[in-house]
Amino acid sequence: MTRTLDLNCDMGESFGAWTMGDDAEMLKIVTTANIACGFHAGDPAVMARTIGLARDAGVAIGAHPSFMDLYGFGRRRISGERPEDLEAQLVYQIAAMRGMAEIAGHRMTHVKTHGALGNMAAVDADLAALCVRAVKSVDPKLTYVSLPYSETYAAAEKAGLPVACEIYADRSYTDAGELTPRTQPGAVIHDIAQSTDQVLEMVLNGHIPTTGGKRLPVEPATLCIHGDTAGAVEIARNLRTNLEANDVTIAPFNTPGKDPA
Amino acid sequence: MTRTLDLNCDMGESFGAWTMGDDAEMLKIVTTANIACGFHAGDPAVMARTIGLARDAGVAIGAHPSFMDLYGFGRRRISGERPEDLEAQLVYQIAAMRGMAEIAGHRMTHVKTHGALGNMAAVDADLAALCVRAVKSVDPKLTYVSLPYSETYAAAEKAGLPVACEIYADRSYTDAGELTPRTQPGAVIHDIAQSTDQVLEMVLNGHIPTTGGKRLPVEPATLCIHGDTAGAVEIARNLRTNLEANDVTIAPFNTPGKDPA
Amino acid sequence: MTRTLDLNCDMGESFGAWTMGDDAEMLKIVTTANIACGFHAGDPAVMARTIGLARDAGVAIGAHPSFMDLYGFGRRRISGERPEDLEAQLVYQIAAMRGMAEIAGHRMTHVKTHGALGNMAAVDADLAALCVRAVKSVDPKLTYVSLPYSETYAAAEKAGLPVACEIYADRSYTDAGELTPRTQPGAVIHDIAQSTDQVLEMVLNGHIPTTGGKRLPVEPATLCIHGDTAGAVEIARNLRTNLEANDVTIAPFNTPGKDPA
Amino acid sequence: MTRTLDLNCDMGESFGAWTMGDDAEMLKIVTTANIACGFHAGDPAVMARTIGLARDAGVAIGAHPSFMDLYGFGRRRISGERPEDLEAQLVYQIAAMRGMAEIAGHRMTHVKTHGALGNMAAVDADLAALCVRAVKSVDPKLTYVSLPYSETYAAAEKAGLPVACEIYADRSYTDAGELTPRTQPGAVIHDIAQSTDQVLEMVLNGHIPTTGGKRLPVEPATLCIHGDTAGAVEIARNLRTNLEANDVTIAPFNTPGKDPA
Repeated sequence: MTRTLDLNCDMGESFGAWTMGDDAEMLKIVTTANIACGFHAGDPAVMARTIGLARDAGVAIGAHPSFMDLYGFGRRRISGERPEDLEAQLVYQIAAMRGMAEIAGHRMTHVKTHGALGNMAAVDADLAALCVRAVKSVDPKLTYVSLPYSETYAAAEKAGLPVACEIYADRSYTDAGELTPRTQPGAVIHDIAQSTDQVLEMVLNGHIPTTGGKRLPVEPATLCIHGDTAGAVEIARNLRTNLEANDVTIAPFNTPGKDPA
Repeated sequence: MTRTLDLNCDMGESFGAWTMGDDAEMLKIVTTANIACGFHAGDPAVMARTIGLARDAGVAIGAHPSFMDLYGFGRRRISGERPEDLEAQLVYQIAAMRGMAEIAGHRMTHVKTHGALGNMAAVDADLAALCVRAVKSVDPKLTYVSLPYSETYAAAEKAGLPVACEIYADRSYTDAGELTPRTQPGAVIHDIAQSTDQVLEMVLNGHIPTTGGKRLPVEPATLCIHGDTAGAVEIARNLRTNLEANDVTIAPFNTPGKDPA
Repeated sequence: MTRTLDLNCDMGESFGAWTMGDDAEMLKIVTTANIACGFHAGDPAVMARTIGLARDAGVAIGAHPSFMDLYGFGRRRISGERPEDLEAQLVYQIAAMRGMAEIAGHRMTHVKTHGALGNMAAVDADLAALCVRAVKSVDPKLTYVSLPYSETYAAAEKAGLPVACEIYADRSYTDAGELTPRTQPGAVIHDIAQSTDQVLEMVLNGHIPTTGGKRLPVEPATLCIHGDTAGAVEIARNLRTNLEANDVTIAPFNTPGKDPA
Repeated sequence: MTRTLDLNCDMGESFGAWTMGDDAEMLKIVTTANIACGFHAGDPAVMARTIGLARDAGVAIGAHPSFMDLYGFGRRRISGERPEDLEAQLVYQIAAMRGMAEIAGHRMTHVKTHGALGNMAAVDADLAALCVRAVKSVDPKLTYVSLPYSETYAAAEKAGLPVACEIYADRSYTDAGELTPRTQPGAVIHDIAQSTDQVLEMVLNGHIPTTGGKRLPVEPATLCIHGDTAGAVEIARNLRTNLEANDVTIAPFNTPGKDPA
């Protein structure tokens, strides 16, 4: 049996004079790039360059919108602003990325929320619905990339957006299907073989192994690859090699967002 | 003889907790709004609200992009950055505005550069060409609003963009057809009757009166209305009344950017 | 019996091209100004001007530090950043203000945290201790302005900082001595006579009337005057007049932070 | 004959999630650190860490203020803002750094302006006087680090500020004593031996060799070491080794800014 899996990675996270990550190398390994939109990282020139690099590498792209928080890299948890303000911020970021992709001759096919916004929306139904509304208002054919067993997954499905189920290789899962918080022991899987096994179990057998010994059904579409940790490129390359050696085909997730023609 | 003139005004210049201008009142008077895109003023929520107000008032809208300079309100003259970086900044702003307009059901039909960027591009052929490239890359049907007798006007025409010739009621002109620098005496026309006369001469007789006594040919499409000065609304209302009393029809400029259907 | 009360008001909240509040008028009424430090509002030029105005008006000044959040005006609740990072941000703001005050020949005598930071610290012992550490590290003679019945008050006292107990005229109090959340009915007192009565009860009788009918002991040093609401100046003037008519002396709070000589 | 020379390097140029330079290594080589103040790079936490590292390494520190231009890293040339606004920005940055240094138990002894601001002030007498005023207003004992043959050097001397004459190892000089613009051939000296020779000629013989064959008198106090180029640490180490091998003592410049006790 052969199964297909997408590898997605956050990219375009440089800003002004500062660089982050090795996008050029990572683009040789992954099949989808989540590109920062200028609110937590990225600036218009970085966005344009990253879109161009992805296009040339044949890598699918999506917007990676965030809270307006450059200093905190979108990792600070922000609350207390009016929902319509936050929704407009997301629309702005996604619309800007979409326009820039069009100009570069590369269609944007998905959206994945960044950092604290993504984490908070995963467990907050109102915030999840807000994120989904923002994406849908720009283009209802955009795929929403989300963890399963989350409010965002439910909200995107309810809204009729295509959803790409995202899995992690290096994070363990609770019995509720959520990522084990990093503050708890065993949250992060450092061993590459163990990471590979977890992904194979999810992709080939269709279930998530949990820390409580459960097996939760899952239909993974894309694997989150980290780009800004030490040795990120090497880890990503090994993971891909291991998966392909186990008859997993690495390719962009198939979505209704793609042009029929 | 009846002539038509558009009245354009910068809008959406509030930011976060700060408000600027009285957009709601001004939208009753002008026929075109240049909306700030978040780089010198405006934020996504302000943009969304302003687009909605303009749509409801039947006022045409355009992007009003700027240098990335919130603190300086886009009025600081900035140089020394790579042209491709600045061009990407303009594309980003225009694309974001265009996407937000589409979502609100109101087409964006023009672009007018803001503040120091506009002033510098008017007399710098390279910068003018850069601005025009940015607009054209987003949509070649967008109208470029520009002073006549400027590098931007020439660059937009050369690139095949529709151009709307912009005139001023409250500024005098040099023999070169440029605005008299504010540092010189007689640069600003404070008298409303004198302002009206200058506009009528340009609109009805087709020439710009200069401080040196010349008459330069002009085909005005739109009059710049200031929105952030004391008594701005009152001045704008008086100007409109005076123009209409002299058989000038106030209406959005006619451009190829408009949908044929 | 005569009692003394300070009136404090947030000031210097303009930014760049945007103005907020009528500081010049408010400086004729209040006795202490909390000056924004550039992180949620204010910019260096606004700070310098506001310090100068306060000095000329004989009004005491203090730093009004905030989360780093210009867009949200410091009203967005931010969490998840490293405590040492936030502490450094506060030190930076207070140190900048202190230096600018010295240059203007006007000593800074207190610190009051702004917006969401102040609200969160009031009920979070760790955050309160962090704020107090930041203030003390700059100058242990600075007075900490805080609500009573709060973690900040306790933390400042424990650290040996002088504390000025702050009261509200236009907010009701819960039985725990906290401000009634704005989401609840009766949270805001709109009537000026009722506001005056509440202040008089706190100042002359030494207790806080609560919504549950309790009387909590209090020794008020300063009354919070709002500067950015409609009619703010008029309300402030009336309050001051009413208090003085009831033999309350309006003067800066007396603190060990003041120079002995 | 033995001469003393200081080596200064820009540091603390990381921001939020982004890192720049290898400050820890560079602190083993140089004797003075110019620390970014948050306007072009650095943030309060980076400043606090860098001050602490410099203190522990026995390296002298100074403020490295800039235009307010995080995106452009202070390298964009900015003009057209009110002089008093820019002066307040400089005072704010220097005062914040000074306060943070005091708290860390490490005195700030100098100021060196950054990037475009420094370049522009070197040839603009009004801007030079503005920068000098800002430094002097914070503390007239602060040393102003400046190129010789510049408006800043002249302004600092005229104002009675101590001045440390700064030289470059890797840049050639025009006959006017200015750095050859980077756009011209021969502007940058890539050879380490040639760089060493130039420094030795300036330090030991007291003159600047120019591209036109002139010899301009100079009394160098400090050598500018670049920290953000490829191989920066290695180049700095080699330069220091070469200079010491030629009997140049590397030590912080002696200034009246230092405490007598």
